[in-house]
Amino acid sequence: METVSEWTCFGGDLSVHDHDSETLDCSMRFAVFEPPQTSEEPVPVLWYLSGLTCTWANVMEKGGLQRKASELGVMIVAPDTSPRGDKVPDDEAYDFGQGAGFYLTATEKPWEKHFRMDQYIMEELPSIIRSNFAADMRRQSIFGHSMGGHGALTLALKNPGHFRSVSAFSPIVAPTQVPWGQKAFKGYLGDDEAAWKAYDACELVRKQQLDTTILIDQGEDDQFLDEQLKPRLFEEACREVGQPLAIRMRPGYDHSYYFISTFMDDHIMHHAKALYG
Amino acid sequence: METVSEWTCFGGDLSVHDHDSETLDCSMRFAVFEPPQTSEEPVPVLWYLSGLTCTWANVMEKGGLQRKASELGVMIVAPDTSPRGDKVPDDEAYDFGQGAGFYLTATEKPWEKHFRMDQYIMEELPSIIRSNFAADMRRQSIFGHSMGGHGALTLALKNPGHFRSVSAFSPIVAPTQVPWGQKAFKGYLGDDEAAWKAYDACELVRKQQLDTTILIDQGEDDQFLDEQLKPRLFEEACREVGQPLAIRMRPGYDHSYYFISTFMDDHIMHHAKALYG
Repeated sequence: METVSEWTCFGGDLSVHDHDSETLDCSMRFAVFEPPQTSEEPVPVLWYLSGLTCTWANVMEKGGLQRKASELGVMIVAPDTSPRGDKVPDDEAYDFGQGAGFYLTATEKPWEKHFRMDQYIMEELPSIIRSNFAADMRRQSIFGHSMGGHGALTLALKNPGHFRSVSAFSPIVAPTQVPWGQKAFKGYLGDDEAAWKAYDACELVRKQQLDTTILIDQGEDDQFLDEQLKPRLFEEACREVGQPLAIRMRPGYDHSYYFISTFMDDHIMHHAKALYG
Repeated sequence: METVSEWTCFGGDLSVHDHDSETLDCSMRFAVFEPPQTSEEPVPVLWYLSGLTCTWANVMEKGGLQRKASELGVMIVAPDTSPRGDKVPDDEAYDFGQGAGFYLTATEKPWEKHFRMDQYIMEELPSIIRSNFAADMRRQSIFGHSMGGHGALTLALKNPGHFRSVSAFSPIVAPTQVPWGQKAFKGYLGDDEAAWKAYDACELVRKQQLDTTILIDQGEDDQFLDEQLKPRLFEEACREVGQPLAIRMRPGYDHSYYFISTFMDDHIMHHAKALYG
């Protein structure tokens, strides 16, 4: 692991690191915000998964999460959104290929050698965090935005008990039913739509519920709301199976980090309560 | 005035506008954050001046000012840092020409037709804000970062009584004595160093003090501290003439928006106290 940048921020330490990922077969970059409490003892870890095109930088620069994370003693880890680099296959589109990993294990060529973001987030990166930071890995939570909201929901639902809490800003909740997800799943997973269901939060929650309330904030003026996000589908699925869900529609807000930063404190507090409860 | 973008953020409204500036003889872009209180009554205005290379976007995206401005009912106006565009002269350097207006009126060719950022900030843009937003222009304050801190200090000192309060993050306080300022002043103002003094906070405060405490935050690990910023020169000048000054050296912090966002709340509160006092 090589540290490429480091800043003091809200009394804590924000650092950016490169490492050679075995899982993804490429060099990967991630950021960690360590709150000041790490100088005393290991602190719980909150994973933030970003949306299409993003890297670690979007949330660390624009998300406004350091203030509350510092106050409440929560470490934040922000991975990249896909494998990257010259030897990794790519696509010209913003919503497929590099920057659009969709937190799954690809089975189709040429993606299957590198696109394994679910394994990377659940296995390889946690072991790096455990070894290099004052992180209490027995206490982890996860959240994300848009494609990263999809990632947070599906990883939490596929690994019940692993995360103490899960939340999302404007998540893709039903990728098998919307253009972003259908394009990505067809490309990474092939034509067999049965295989897609393993990465669809609406499908997953019907099979496996979590004993924690899932928190979702969604802007009502989000330009992707009706075509790509469809939070009502997840609300319906949760209601059917009795999954506790708090979904809050926010009039006037769109898909941007201006929306995310507005409700960031609420999400950090939601997770801190579970992580320290 | 043409509105080019608009977002809801922390219950307020962030909007970005283009207009044809007579003062600068080019099209200019600026951003305004209107807190929710503007729906009830006009609110005071806090000007934020950015540093070298920046536009309105740096502070609005990374400064984290909307939360506190929204809570305390302060409108924020973020202008650009220089005239811009194809017909405006430029220079390849990051610290001269477009993006480096230094909040002065140039007298040298080819800059003198466009580079008049002090007049733009003090006269033209305020009249646009007055006409288009619920702004109480009897109550204004100003702050900024680096070159923008220089702008805030010099505009406040040159216009005593105009701003109710002034503060800065890592300001250039003695441009006549440091490379950034010397290069810019020589280029915009010519070889006569006597003319430079009209834009040097250390010189100005010796002639004219303010009846408000000037607030400055400065990172001790700022890479520009020793060569370009030299806050001790301003501290010395203020002490000589009895200008109230609160300068706070911050161990571990650098020149970035991670530093600015950490102390942003303090600055907004400092100004809100003066604006609502």
